[in-house]
Amino acid sequence: MEFWDQEQQAYPLQNVCSGPRPQHTCPFHKTVMEKTTDVLPLAMNSSEKQETVCIFGTGDFGQSLGLEMLQCGYSIVFGSRNPRMSGLLPNGAEVLSYSEAAQKSDIIIIAIHREHYDFLTELTEVLNGKILVDVSNNLKIKQYPESNAEYLAQLVPGAHVVKAFNTISAWALQSRALDASRQVFVCGNDSKAKQRVMDIVRSLGLTPLDKGSLMAANEIENYPLQLFTMWKFPFYLSAVLCVFFFFYCVIREVIYPYVYEKKDRTFRLAISIPNRVFPIAALTLLALVYLPGVIAAILQLYRGTKYRRFPDWLDHWMLCRKQLGLIALGFAFLHVLYTLVIPIRYYVRWTWTNRTIAQAIAKKGSPFSTSTAWLSDSYVAMGMLGFFLFVLLGITSLPSVSNMVNWREFRFVQSKLGYLTLILCTAHTLVYGGKRFLSPSSLIWYLPSAYVIALIIPCTVLVIKFILILPCIDKTLTRIREGWERNPKFSESALNGKTDI
Amino acid sequence: MEFWDQEQQAYPLQNVCSGPRPQHTCPFHKTVMEKTTDVLPLAMNSSEKQETVCIFGTGDFGQSLGLEMLQCGYSIVFGSRNPRMSGLLPNGAEVLSYSEAAQKSDIIIIAIHREHYDFLTELTEVLNGKILVDVSNNLKIKQYPESNAEYLAQLVPGAHVVKAFNTISAWALQSRALDASRQVFVCGNDSKAKQRVMDIVRSLGLTPLDKGSLMAANEIENYPLQLFTMWKFPFYLSAVLCVFFFFYCVIREVIYPYVYEKKDRTFRLAISIPNRVFPIAALTLLALVYLPGVIAAILQLYRGTKYRRFPDWLDHWMLCRKQLGLIALGFAFLHVLYTLVIPIRYYVRWTWTNRTIAQAIAKKGSPFSTSTAWLSDSYVAMGMLGFFLFVLLGITSLPSVSNMVNWREFRFVQSKLGYLTLILCTAHTLVYGGKRFLSPSSLIWYLPSAYVIALIIPCTVLVIKFILILPCIDKTLTRIREGWERNPKFSESALNGKTDI
Amino acid sequence: MEFWDQEQQAYPLQNVCSGPRPQHTCPFHKTVMEKTTDVLPLAMNSSEKQETVCIFGTGDFGQSLGLEMLQCGYSIVFGSRNPRMSGLLPNGAEVLSYSEAAQKSDIIIIAIHREHYDFLTELTEVLNGKILVDVSNNLKIKQYPESNAEYLAQLVPGAHVVKAFNTISAWALQSRALDASRQVFVCGNDSKAKQRVMDIVRSLGLTPLDKGSLMAANEIENYPLQLFTMWKFPFYLSAVLCVFFFFYCVIREVIYPYVYEKKDRTFRLAISIPNRVFPIAALTLLALVYLPGVIAAILQLYRGTKYRRFPDWLDHWMLCRKQLGLIALGFAFLHVLYTLVIPIRYYVRWTWTNRTIAQAIAKKGSPFSTSTAWLSDSYVAMGMLGFFLFVLLGITSLPSVSNMVNWREFRFVQSKLGYLTLILCTAHTLVYGGKRFLSPSSLIWYLPSAYVIALIIPCTVLVIKFILILPCIDKTLTRIREGWERNPKFSESALNGKTDI
Repeated sequence: MEFWDQEQQAYPLQNVCSGPRPQHTCPFHKTVMEKTTDVLPLAMNSSEKQETVCIFGTGDFGQSLGLEMLQCGYSIVFGSRNPRMSGLLPNGAEVLSYSEAAQKSDIIIIAIHREHYDFLTELTEVLNGKILVDVSNNLKIKQYPESNAEYLAQLVPGAHVVKAFNTISAWALQSRALDASRQVFVCGNDSKAKQRVMDIVRSLGLTPLDKGSLMAANEIENYPLQLFTMWKFPFYLSAVLCVFFFFYCVIREVIYPYVYEKKDRTFRLAISIPNRVFPIAALTLLALVYLPGVIAAILQLYRGTKYRRFPDWLDHWMLCRKQLGLIALGFAFLHVLYTLVIPIRYYVRWTWTNRTIAQAIAKKGSPFSTSTAWLSDSYVAMGMLGFFLFVLLGITSLPSVSNMVNWREFRFVQSKLGYLTLILCTAHTLVYGGKRFLSPSSLIWYLPSAYVIALIIPCTVLVIKFILILPCIDKTLTRIREGWERNPKFSESALNGKTDI
Repeated sequence: MEFWDQEQQAYPLQNVCSGPRPQHTCPFHKTVMEKTTDVLPLAMNSSEKQETVCIFGTGDFGQSLGLEMLQCGYSIVFGSRNPRMSGLLPNGAEVLSYSEAAQKSDIIIIAIHREHYDFLTELTEVLNGKILVDVSNNLKIKQYPESNAEYLAQLVPGAHVVKAFNTISAWALQSRALDASRQVFVCGNDSKAKQRVMDIVRSLGLTPLDKGSLMAANEIENYPLQLFTMWKFPFYLSAVLCVFFFFYCVIREVIYPYVYEKKDRTFRLAISIPNRVFPIAALTLLALVYLPGVIAAILQLYRGTKYRRFPDWLDHWMLCRKQLGLIALGFAFLHVLYTLVIPIRYYVRWTWTNRTIAQAIAKKGSPFSTSTAWLSDSYVAMGMLGFFLFVLLGITSLPSVSNMVNWREFRFVQSKLGYLTLILCTAHTLVYGGKRFLSPSSLIWYLPSAYVIALIIPCTVLVIKFILILPCIDKTLTRIREGWERNPKFSESALNGKTDI
Repeated sequence: MEFWDQEQQAYPLQNVCSGPRPQHTCPFHKTVMEKTTDVLPLAMNSSEKQETVCIFGTGDFGQSLGLEMLQCGYSIVFGSRNPRMSGLLPNGAEVLSYSEAAQKSDIIIIAIHREHYDFLTELTEVLNGKILVDVSNNLKIKQYPESNAEYLAQLVPGAHVVKAFNTISAWALQSRALDASRQVFVCGNDSKAKQRVMDIVRSLGLTPLDKGSLMAANEIENYPLQLFTMWKFPFYLSAVLCVFFFFYCVIREVIYPYVYEKKDRTFRLAISIPNRVFPIAALTLLALVYLPGVIAAILQLYRGTKYRRFPDWLDHWMLCRKQLGLIALGFAFLHVLYTLVIPIRYYVRWTWTNRTIAQAIAKKGSPFSTSTAWLSDSYVAMGMLGFFLFVLLGITSLPSVSNMVNWREFRFVQSKLGYLTLILCTAHTLVYGGKRFLSPSSLIWYLPSAYVIALIIPCTVLVIKFILILPCIDKTLTRIREGWERNPKFSESALNGKTDI
């Protein structure tokens, strides 16, 4: 259903026969330059001898790739089962039988589905010593025991197999959706072959990334199949949180008043209740970012060693802390927006106005309470500072930023700033509760206010954390993390630890 | 007029003769380390044999480059028309005639304007087999038929020409304006020569980017000449939009009341009217991001093939969708700011206060209307959610972020989230209109409210889009985009499509 | 004290003997793929002949590294002083004496503290021609005259020394804290040796960055020791600014009313006073970003040449302008937040309500003043526009964004937009002052309002800047910056300047 990129078309075959476009009028190349400086296509404005590349397979991807390469000054030979039949090919290109085509070039791009690789076995002697570029993808992860590229290498042992181009879709190639990643992962065992393929990638205005030997092919082939894998758990978790607290608040703030006071409070569904759910979700998720660290510390203290694996759930939890944190930041952002519009809302203004009118008619204003002023101001202030630090954390998690800080700086930001944020946000909620924290009046159908529940996890984390940084405990923990063991196998290892890194 | 970087100076020639600076006190190198981890200069604190590099030309750039290289431990020989005369050169450097200088090194940097290249023809036998680095830039795009580097390669066929350093200004080299891009595009036909030049680039604390063969030189030379080329059209478009709607609102809200009620409403020019213009511009531009996609889809359905070129205007439009979207985001951001300050504004507070006072004196508050509460809350809520998604879209368009997502994820974000944003923002405006949408009362001089006009394009896009995703139509479209044609040239191609990628 | 990453553990030694993990269930590799596309580990699912790597030293880092390499399919031989004693090693690994281990492989990773390098001298003939990878770090900058790697190269002249892995902590290696930078700086004099080490780095899912020859080792070794070095000065400066203005405001707004009117205004400490300090700090810091440029221009005009070094304090000041600007942006952001919550604060609402009530009781509202409306609206508007441009500046300073713009564009944004921001923010403050700018009534204990002091630096900068861009002065300055000198050493240099770049 995506229209953002799919509608974009290849430079039509008709206008290819008119030779390579004048470079500066070619929107594709121009933009490549302007958009991202690291994708810089090869211009076609000098009359050098053209390198010939052979493409097996005349499917959509094969055609798009051939088309782009033609326009970048390569001469293309297509290999096809029945050359005379494939009509849709770029006019610049030659179409021959597989074996004929193979002889024309020493680089052969295999744009064929893995299922049809077997016919290549007949061509082994022709393909011997040539560079085979595997561009294939699978339909699902772990579809085959070994990666397509490695399978290809087994079929044609004499050839140098290079994996490339699979992360770029036919659409991306044809289209000018240059905002998308134009990185092309390349891997292969023969470094010369790899180099030549990387040059072709570069010349197409894409960015090659050397991923080492052919063993990386499996990862590369799985890459395009993923859809926010690491985000799934955090996403569902936060969805559950939101739904639960939403209905919890609906019961307290809509159903209850309707049942007992026959008041229609449904309009609270739009802003008031979401603005209770968002901060709760944000605070809980933020606490869940730091909970696994605390649990891990306890585990290590209990086991007295760091050389024992954590349970898988803890491993996975640690892996998606960044995502949890970012989703929490999203909720915090929404909470800020929803809070700042309060004075604009009709309901709020109506309430304030009528209270004022009532007081005016009664000819008496309410006295000023300094303590209330303190409470209100300080919880707002803590909330804003917490949000500010939270945004800082979010910015440092941008890849380009985190690449700029070294390990010490990253740890400083993530742990110190992170905990400070958690403390501020928890305090923000605590002070918000203020006096009426657990006062029975705030109980509705024996249900406490939502924020009371929201405080459980953060407070737990902070308390345990506080215990953990008590000098005595902290010392043990640090030693464990430096490799010390309560009951090591050899007394020697300690000594080694001293002299070795 | 730019002072941000120009005032920064080279390490003065005087203090160069005192030998390379002690490394850790050198602000330049220190910062390079601290600022961006990927520019890491070569420190000069070991006494290895120095590589000699020759520089032709003693202009500003030649001097700056020579200076930097001297300080990074190279020994520099300048080639000059009249060696005895060029006095301003770094004291560490030797100055000889061109031919003498050329013999001293096998890397020669040509820091001379293209117009004066011709004298190199006399040196062909000296330059034979040497590496010539072309650092030149032109004054305007397409000034010459071929790139300077290729021209140089034709003049001195025996030499290995490498294009480099042209993206770095003399200021950048001397200055410590390290925030600017320090990427140096390098291209050349001889890979060994390229490697050596890239090592020099690295040793200067810059980041070399291999752009393939010398054919890329033309692109590289054009790169520094561009100034937000892709932004021009979106920028002017939004400027026109703003101006038009600004005056439209001025007529309705300033001139009209002045003419009929002799009221001075000029102060509305500061916030009220901009806060009508910004959201309208944002919504329109956002719709214009998705309009070309819809048009393209219709074109393809009409033609029954994807192998036909789109009209150029559509091509160009598609190319600057990202910029359109980002400008729209900017307007949305301003709209949010301008809306949130409403309760602080004197005018608003005065109005509210006086209404309250009037009611208080009349001893009767206005009754509470649930429907109004619903309307007000829901349109605010939709606006905020729309803005939130919009910000998400903006973040994913950051290069470092979009490099992290694969093609599927990028399409998901850009199309699904994008349309959701458009829907929310359009609904936001529709509900804002509420009842008084086209009521005659809101007509002034037969002019409808501005937001009514703003809704035309978004609604059109959404309606067509809705029709396009009807199963029947969508199926055809998808098939067309998979390469199917209503009247293909050969029945064969379909079959190929099946087995090939 | 950092728990964010430290608690994460290596895949325990126990489960290594069970051979390399099945690739897709390995959380580490999975995430590498999903998180950052440019760290792509080598998958272990094909049975190729394993490369043998030797590691000297069985400390924590040596173990972690060996462990990772084992899991990525290398066979590891540990070299140890007393092989029989070191028990904690990964079960897959062999442990031998140094000399025995060295013979098993031609790549030897020296995971030993520099102090113990000397024993390597005894192994010179064994290590001859082998690749020694120095992974060591020092405890503080400039601990030794030469870098560890160069020291190692001197000890074992026959070997090819490569510096690598020191930027990655043992924690980073073991842990899955993938958000942190996974860049590994590599440098060495032998390019083949460097290549092989970079392949190993890649195969571990890290990103190698070639930093040229071994002379870069010193920089690389210092890198992990830095902690926001460039941020220190801006940070302390802003801290001082905040403290000073905080107490300045406390005196005026808390102590004074308490002394004279016995009013308890302490609650203003939470929001009101910070909201005076933040904008002042932001404006001052922003002005300090542009002050050095102005000073430099004056210096150059005075000296009549650009070939003279600036005083060190000016150099350093220019170096941390980016940091100053970003901190200023932080304050501006806080100022915006603190301003937008004004109408929600209890104190503010109480004041407004009571004023309204008073007027209502007095049965007379205040008349509407157009000029006040103008003042209030315009200063708010200018503030918001200034903030908007400020945010733009901040975004362009993101490394991934500034890499996308060329030099001209960067200068345009930083200088033009920067000054526009400064002008808007200064005007914002000036208009805020409005009539009561220096009126004696606003003097308290002869102290003017804080914002008056805040205006001094910005106004100075803008005035000087305005003078500098007067055509006559600007012309001279530009010529100076193009290399012209008021009293050049040779009339020749001018001529050269013409023909050369």
